[in-house]
Amino acid sequence: MLPIAVDAMGGDKAPDEIVAGARRASEQLGIPVVLVGRPGEMGDTGDLAIIEASEVIAMDAEAGSSVRRMKDSSLVRAAEAVRDGKASAMVSAGNTGATMASALLRMGRIKGINRPAIATPIPVPGGTPTTLLDAGANAECRPEWLVEFARMGAVYARDRFGIQKPRVGLLSIGEEAGKGSPFVKESFAGLSDPAWALASDCEWIGNVEGRDVMTSEVDVIVTDGFTGNVTLKTLEGAMQALIGRLLVAIDTDDHTRAAGEALGPALDQMVAELHPDTVGGALLLGVKGVCVISHGSSSEAAMINAISVAAEMVEVEMVRHLTASAS
Amino acid sequence: MLPIAVDAMGGDKAPDEIVAGARRASEQLGIPVVLVGRPGEMGDTGDLAIIEASEVIAMDAEAGSSVRRMKDSSLVRAAEAVRDGKASAMVSAGNTGATMASALLRMGRIKGINRPAIATPIPVPGGTPTTLLDAGANAECRPEWLVEFARMGAVYARDRFGIQKPRVGLLSIGEEAGKGSPFVKESFAGLSDPAWALASDCEWIGNVEGRDVMTSEVDVIVTDGFTGNVTLKTLEGAMQALIGRLLVAIDTDDHTRAAGEALGPALDQMVAELHPDTVGGALLLGVKGVCVISHGSSSEAAMINAISVAAEMVEVEMVRHLTASAS
Repeated sequence: MLPIAVDAMGGDKAPDEIVAGARRASEQLGIPVVLVGRPGEMGDTGDLAIIEASEVIAMDAEAGSSVRRMKDSSLVRAAEAVRDGKASAMVSAGNTGATMASALLRMGRIKGINRPAIATPIPVPGGTPTTLLDAGANAECRPEWLVEFARMGAVYARDRFGIQKPRVGLLSIGEEAGKGSPFVKESFAGLSDPAWALASDCEWIGNVEGRDVMTSEVDVIVTDGFTGNVTLKTLEGAMQALIGRLLVAIDTDDHTRAAGEALGPALDQMVAELHPDTVGGALLLGVKGVCVISHGSSSEAAMINAISVAAEMVEVEMVRHLTASAS
Repeated sequence: MLPIAVDAMGGDKAPDEIVAGARRASEQLGIPVVLVGRPGEMGDTGDLAIIEASEVIAMDAEAGSSVRRMKDSSLVRAAEAVRDGKASAMVSAGNTGATMASALLRMGRIKGINRPAIATPIPVPGGTPTTLLDAGANAECRPEWLVEFARMGAVYARDRFGIQKPRVGLLSIGEEAGKGSPFVKESFAGLSDPAWALASDCEWIGNVEGRDVMTSEVDVIVTDGFTGNVTLKTLEGAMQALIGRLLVAIDTDDHTRAAGEALGPALDQMVAELHPDTVGGALLLGVKGVCVISHGSSSEAAMINAISVAAEMVEVEMVRHLTASAS
């Protein structure tokens, strides 16, 4: 396998935790990795290969203009490495918009896909994660793009989670066909055409609601990038609030603190299971290459996960499956 | 105070739990209540007054046509009681759409309000609830309505939670002004006019994100009814998933089960604090009367809360404040 190109300069904890995660993915999991960035700033990179890039796109920089202007940035060079057959995938915890723009401009779109979408797996307690897309690539969508999202989401759910016949739902505010905004109703009509589900070997289950996201009722949820991103961040906030409140409950008195101690390992496992980092980075689906977008706050552990997911998606040939599905 | 008109026939647990909650609100809290519905089906109504209504609008009935057709339904009669000065407020756990339509058609809109909106308080661990509106009344909104929602939300946050200068944010997918869908950007521009915030004595804080909803960063969040409803249901689902997962963690072995036992009261308090029923029903703001929309699954305890909130909003003269704010 060609190496995974890791943007060493992107993310709140770059380059230290990024490089540490990349080294561990290589040394412990045997995944080939190439770091992309400023050699003098990466610290001890061990035996990892390096692609030099002199510029860094800041986390809050305007995406489009940065990518056009900073041709020697780590993000642009990482995407070019994939395009040029020097890397099999790119992984970044940097500026999300710039990651998308780099991948889109350098790798290009898969034929038949109007707009790439971000697919994010949502943890489901005791079950297989639900794939939500678009989780933020396109703040405004056309109804017909949602059929493309549905087909891409089905490929991803199959390649990543082994779901042979994924159940695909449309995020709305009621289960009946007539529920939702005009955009959702029009999307519902397009998705109700049996042709795409038949061709994608998945099951169209109609509207689903916000309360279904963390359940085993559905495998792939399609929505516009605005609603998807709000949903994702609402979930993150709810997790934080609840875990914070749980720690307060445990801290009530000596009795409850002792109980908290006893519950420690079980709670740690619960938090790990529900933490977005565990399921691994989101993927930009629809470009001609594997592009993993990791959380800006990614730690070393999150990077190992993100690099593993990238390697796995390369191995199963997800991009070939997406291309076949879109044609 | 005029009695609170309680729709005895609406809700998954109607009429038993509804009537039980109404009786306890009257007998234990001294809130005057009048039950609206079919006398023969309400069971033991104690000393409560009754307004007879022969029809019941089903939970899944089409709202608009039901309200127009079923003039002797409990929902329509409850709204009429408020309009006719026989009741001070209405409370229903029934069909949400039909509750809104009844209130709108019988009570009418407050002058200056284009569309009533559902305001739902979201629990904030250790803090004052965040008021989210519109939580589902209008699946599609015009940007200018969000300024009306903001002004109404500010009145509600002040009257209900005593927040003197509420901080109002717009739900988006990034904090910067340029983030979001075209609708959100246009809403942002309208909300950025300092006039309304000055007139409403509140603070416009710009965009907020899904992860801010359960925090003390903001008091009132405005959004369109589609996004608001998805957010609300996503939170409900996340709470259920997390609490379910927590019970699994506690059930790991004898050791953790004993710890769970010890944590019992603290956990019960946590769940109660975060349960939507505790904070009490959502309000339909913008109609000429207090209208509390309780969750379809409302229990006796939820009804007591909903009736208390209704009485409180009557006492503080919320409708007068909303009317003054909108003119």
